[in-house]
Amino acid sequence: MGKKYSMQHEVAYYQCDINQTMTFPAMLSVVIKASSDQSDQLERGTEAINQLGLTWVITQTEININRMPRDGETITVITEPTAFNKFFCYRSFWINDGQGNLLVKIDMAFVLMKIEERKMSSVDAELMAPYESEQIKKIKRWDKIEAVTDGKQRLYHVRFYDLDSNHHVNNAMYFNWMIDVLGYDFMVEHTPVYVNVKFDKEVLYGNDIHSLYQIIEEDQTKTLHEIRLGDQLACEANIVWQKK
Amino acid sequence: MGKKYSMQHEVAYYQCDINQTMTFPAMLSVVIKASSDQSDQLERGTEAINQLGLTWVITQTEININRMPRDGETITVITEPTAFNKFFCYRSFWINDGQGNLLVKIDMAFVLMKIEERKMSSVDAELMAPYESEQIKKIKRWDKIEAVTDGKQRLYHVRFYDLDSNHHVNNAMYFNWMIDVLGYDFMVEHTPVYVNVKFDKEVLYGNDIHSLYQIIEEDQTKTLHEIRLGDQLACEANIVWQKK
Repeated sequence: MGKKYSMQHEVAYYQCDINQTMTFPAMLSVVIKASSDQSDQLERGTEAINQLGLTWVITQTEININRMPRDGETITVITEPTAFNKFFCYRSFWINDGQGNLLVKIDMAFVLMKIEERKMSSVDAELMAPYESEQIKKIKRWDKIEAVTDGKQRLYHVRFYDLDSNHHVNNAMYFNWMIDVLGYDFMVEHTPVYVNVKFDKEVLYGNDIHSLYQIIEEDQTKTLHEIRLGDQLACEANIVWQKK
Repeated sequence: MGKKYSMQHEVAYYQCDINQTMTFPAMLSVVIKASSDQSDQLERGTEAINQLGLTWVITQTEININRMPRDGETITVITEPTAFNKFFCYRSFWINDGQGNLLVKIDMAFVLMKIEERKMSSVDAELMAPYESEQIKKIKRWDKIEAVTDGKQRLYHVRFYDLDSNHHVNNAMYFNWMIDVLGYDFMVEHTPVYVNVKFDKEVLYGNDIHSLYQIIEEDQTKTLHEIRLGDQLACEANIVWQKK
């Protein structure tokens, strides 16, 4: 069991969409702040990592949602670096409401990337020591992501404000492109219950990307997403929705 | 002198761009939260105003910048509803650093809009009473905004997450389109010192807008901006910059 860290956050109106609940980019940014604050506390902050020529990159995110956090409520974000193996670090997040009820559970995998070469680095046990997370051999298997087979698409231009302080496009921003294609009516009639997303390739400033999507209506509504950079897959995701 | 309200805010990494300073959309969203929290406290919150069939719309914003707030610093936002006349309410904001030094001063004009008719409403003195701001006859004159005469332009699509809880595009979002056209090199080489922006017409979901701009290099660098909806002017702005 890794060292836990928790912080409180008051959800502001500007972090919510017209449903008065948090947007995906805002929610993911806030939980990442919790892990980044923990790393600062353990002297493994962004600067320390960058000085080693490394940067953290999120490769996979799974989100289970009981209810999205609401405008004005104070949430508690708990995070735990659960385990790491030769290449991946695993971290979980729990978002609770004021009464301690679980609203959202998020699981992520991170890799360390060499900044210059843009290549994956192996994970050093000494670097991970202060997190007290378990060193494992196993590589976690994630649920398979269903590919878009019969999709529509829309072109997006990467904006200056989509860049984060590491000069690459913040993963949370991919949700801007995935959600926007679903449209107003869909977004006011559905609420998300499950998200599975895999980040395959970095999107850079100046890139134009295509956001592909397909809506599947079975027992549950499911949307399939791909972010494409020319013929390369940058990101793929499945989202399960509930009708309101 | 109106009733003052102040709040503290810790600037998060996700509110900053690659310069490690706050983005315009983030900074404006945070100061508007201060005014909205004050209104809630005075029982003049969004819900109370909406129940009268009204909504606040920002028509003008002037920003004087000593230094943009930095990632990680705790700022104090002080706001004061300074005065109102038949149609306009004036409000000022001061952003101070931890030592009480003034970082940014913002002046705004608001009008009350009838939600159904999308028409301006006159401002009721009783509605304004709890703010204790002065009732005046005079209409404030703002510095003239220089028009784009020889501009370039780029097309933007209004995204779902650009909408605020009032179902219209948040004024802070206009800065996404105005800043993005300036490009990466310009944004890392310049820091803003003065902004003057006028909001002429609402941008709605589904609209495609053109962001026009012109860069003037004289004693100081100045950028001229227009947001256009077809042949209609939605927003015009001038920004003065300092070379780093």
